[in-house]
Amino acid sequence: MRRWNGWGDEANSMDLPPTADNFLTERVGTATPLPNITLEDAVAKVPASRLPAHPLIVTAEEDRVRHARGQSLPDLFATRSGDFGVFPDGVAYPETSDQVAELLKFCSEKDVLVIPYGGGTSVVGHVNPFQSEKPILTIDMGRMNRLMDLDEESQIATFGAGTPGPQVEAQLHARGYTLGHFPQSFELATLGGWVASRSSGQQSLRYGRIEQLFAGGRMETPKGRLDIPTFPASSAGPDIREMVLGSEGRMGIISEVKVRVSKLADQENFYVIFFPDWSKAKNAAKALVQSRIQLSMLRLSNAIETETQLALAGHELQIALMEKALSFRGASTGKCMMTLGLTGSKDQCKASLAQLKKITKSFNGVYTGTMLGKRWEEKRFTMPYLREALWDKGYAVDTLETATNWENVDTLLNKMEESLRTALNSENEKVHVFTHLSHFYGQGCSIYTTYVYRTADSYEKTLDRWAKLKHSTSEVIVNNGGTISHQHGVGKDHAPFLPVEKGELGIFAIRTLCDAFDPEKRMNPGTLLVDDK
Amino acid sequence: MRRWNGWGDEANSMDLPPTADNFLTERVGTATPLPNITLEDAVAKVPASRLPAHPLIVTAEEDRVRHARGQSLPDLFATRSGDFGVFPDGVAYPETSDQVAELLKFCSEKDVLVIPYGGGTSVVGHVNPFQSEKPILTIDMGRMNRLMDLDEESQIATFGAGTPGPQVEAQLHARGYTLGHFPQSFELATLGGWVASRSSGQQSLRYGRIEQLFAGGRMETPKGRLDIPTFPASSAGPDIREMVLGSEGRMGIISEVKVRVSKLADQENFYVIFFPDWSKAKNAAKALVQSRIQLSMLRLSNAIETETQLALAGHELQIALMEKALSFRGASTGKCMMTLGLTGSKDQCKASLAQLKKITKSFNGVYTGTMLGKRWEEKRFTMPYLREALWDKGYAVDTLETATNWENVDTLLNKMEESLRTALNSENEKVHVFTHLSHFYGQGCSIYTTYVYRTADSYEKTLDRWAKLKHSTSEVIVNNGGTISHQHGVGKDHAPFLPVEKGELGIFAIRTLCDAFDPEKRMNPGTLLVDDK
Repeated sequence: MRRWNGWGDEANSMDLPPTADNFLTERVGTATPLPNITLEDAVAKVPASRLPAHPLIVTAEEDRVRHARGQSLPDLFATRSGDFGVFPDGVAYPETSDQVAELLKFCSEKDVLVIPYGGGTSVVGHVNPFQSEKPILTIDMGRMNRLMDLDEESQIATFGAGTPGPQVEAQLHARGYTLGHFPQSFELATLGGWVASRSSGQQSLRYGRIEQLFAGGRMETPKGRLDIPTFPASSAGPDIREMVLGSEGRMGIISEVKVRVSKLADQENFYVIFFPDWSKAKNAAKALVQSRIQLSMLRLSNAIETETQLALAGHELQIALMEKALSFRGASTGKCMMTLGLTGSKDQCKASLAQLKKITKSFNGVYTGTMLGKRWEEKRFTMPYLREALWDKGYAVDTLETATNWENVDTLLNKMEESLRTALNSENEKVHVFTHLSHFYGQGCSIYTTYVYRTADSYEKTLDRWAKLKHSTSEVIVNNGGTISHQHGVGKDHAPFLPVEKGELGIFAIRTLCDAFDPEKRMNPGTLLVDDK
Repeated sequence: MRRWNGWGDEANSMDLPPTADNFLTERVGTATPLPNITLEDAVAKVPASRLPAHPLIVTAEEDRVRHARGQSLPDLFATRSGDFGVFPDGVAYPETSDQVAELLKFCSEKDVLVIPYGGGTSVVGHVNPFQSEKPILTIDMGRMNRLMDLDEESQIATFGAGTPGPQVEAQLHARGYTLGHFPQSFELATLGGWVASRSSGQQSLRYGRIEQLFAGGRMETPKGRLDIPTFPASSAGPDIREMVLGSEGRMGIISEVKVRVSKLADQENFYVIFFPDWSKAKNAAKALVQSRIQLSMLRLSNAIETETQLALAGHELQIALMEKALSFRGASTGKCMMTLGLTGSKDQCKASLAQLKKITKSFNGVYTGTMLGKRWEEKRFTMPYLREALWDKGYAVDTLETATNWENVDTLLNKMEESLRTALNSENEKVHVFTHLSHFYGQGCSIYTTYVYRTADSYEKTLDRWAKLKHSTSEVIVNNGGTISHQHGVGKDHAPFLPVEKGELGIFAIRTLCDAFDPEKRMNPGTLLVDDK
């Protein structure tokens, strides 16, 4: 059963290694966890539904609790404290595009606001309802979760938009294919959500971002059905696909998604290379991607993240031995860990491995083989469970991510870390901050910064701490050449920062498009664009 | 000096080999060229300008003749017959973005229509003026032709939008970089034009389409200045870049373009491989691209194009010897020629060559080394001159291009060729038709079909023949799963066919965006979208 107040399945959890306690105490301080309410208590808080009856709409309290929040840190606070604020008035579970269209028609007739819901994994408030005089319907796409068609010659698969990552891959694997889209949210997030929020996965270097994978499909909008044909490429005017990508439910609900799939590769391995310092490590990553070495995955941890990961990895003895060997070869204090993936035919992987070794060696990289790479692969989707484990010890953990050009990476990274590290100075609270680069491009890369802080003695104050950290650093990002999001989307949390990035005319263009499809302004208000109340 | 009534520089021309006459007579029939008017006669046809005076606007007749048409076949007929129809009322040559903005303001105040003009190489009528009661100003961006900035770390170059291909590459080469965008129109076409019409170049497999190269920049619109920031990638809502790409002057004038550039590669070679038949050849191409072999260029000629190219290549003896050797190795009548490019480090090229040989061999490909590849490289931008040479012999040549999914390539290709081959049956005229595939994607490829027919005894009838060929086959394309354009854009010639591709809501979205930026509807009317008169 899916956890109602946190990440993933109730059967799954993550244990912190014994080394973690000391590490956290030293970096952040001793902590006391806040109390969690029960599902029963949460259900008791749900008010009466304001929705008129409809055969596709469920108004049961538990459904409304389970759809009231996403997976941001404030969402965790809400589900653990019971301070939800607002619940949707009901949830619908359509099984066909026609039912989605029927629901939109009903909402127009009855003046109901609509929140599209995929896997509910948003970390920026996409699916959160808001105070409104109008009733709010959440449309959960989870029952549209099947592979509807696979064109093996053109390598195009058509899925119901509510298909979550594991079901996408399982249904494709059975036919010998993969989509290759592996965001951290893979376990729960859906294809439609990835398209709506312009997601990017861990192996984007090989398979591309969702923008490259999304080949067309269907969106039900208040103005009618938009069918987007699939072409390999086209120069016929502005691309409709690109208007739907990132529309975050403001133009309509994506109901069917056509994606470009690949044959399962013969071979896939992940390797780890250590560099003596950040400058060499960063320049090696840049050289790899600008030389177009055929990697499928690349991730570069800065020195603090490297230290943190090794400290929290467990296997103390093994790690200690490895660190000794690394130190002997020039990578000791300040060392940075690079994880690389190779996917393809045996010939391709062999050739790429030789090329990447040559390049990284020229930056004093110490190649350590696949041991740590295998570990990364095993744990690649389990990081969201870490938040639960830390929460139970009284720590809050969150991430900020952006992308910027190479010439700006160090400046922005340092400003972000500094902003987070000092944000709670006035309370004398320490914040443990570390960063990795991922999603590499010739032009630049994404910066992914994690911060850990202690919960305060109340939920309210803990949320205040988060707000200080998040808002001040979001300001730093958009005012220093970073996008407000490389992979999480805009939602409600980033909406106030979007105008700095897009400019006045850019926001005008986006709003014009949204209003054209949704003239009554009932689709996911407050998301993507800040709306007048 | 640039030719006023055809392609390229007056100093350049192409001679047909002696073999060509027989080949054309046999395939199409004997022909008689139509008479060409002189520049003086054309200038004498230009009516008085209706434009109010402005220091940046030139109303001289020759400027207006030189900006009256693009490079489509009907445009050639117009400049050769003198039946221009409409001339712009004047031409402006701005040197800065501010001057572009000033001109747009002037046009708004004086109710003047605007045609943006890059290299004037459109083959679908983008730059052609149209009958209107309002005066028409063509804004020629050719003086904004400089490299304004090069960020070597992020590999981003900023250019004036009017910079033509050779100047883009020359200015980058001087610094050790390349853009790698090489459409057939390279010699004259400009960066801004490529962005506005979603161009794709011969080496798109390595460098990407212009959509991937365009990193941001500036557009002057009737609503003001739109500055698009450069990020490596972003998930922050719909992408403004993608609204400008393909906007074809309907939203504003692109004045500055930021592009992603690459370091000049260590090595580049082009190879030719012959296949015994079309089916094997096509499947080999599909296998190469779906296996992600690192090619920089791929082109596959069908049997008739292969035969035509070898017949028109000259070097009779050499070709005959090669054909004998090929025949011995299984590629005789019906053989298909594949041209492949490898670009990169020596290690990469060596590895890719081994991989491509292995794959093509499994489809019975006969590898012939670099001899014909070198020939392709020498002639890669000269094909537009061929049209002039054929014209002088009484033949008209034009191309149609589209892109479709792999499963549909054969069906669509055959229908297109059949449509062209039979379009002039009622006149008992033969049409020589041949095709190559280029611009390969995992999902499909572009189909590029060339047709040669005899000029009739008047320009009017020759244009009628073209209209029959073009319109019937464009119908075939959009009604059989092809995009109306993979690389030439929409312009005026393709605008009537766009609604089939985009659908009613798609066209509505595009028109809404255009109208938002250009509420007075003065930007390039009739282009991209069919407008009410």
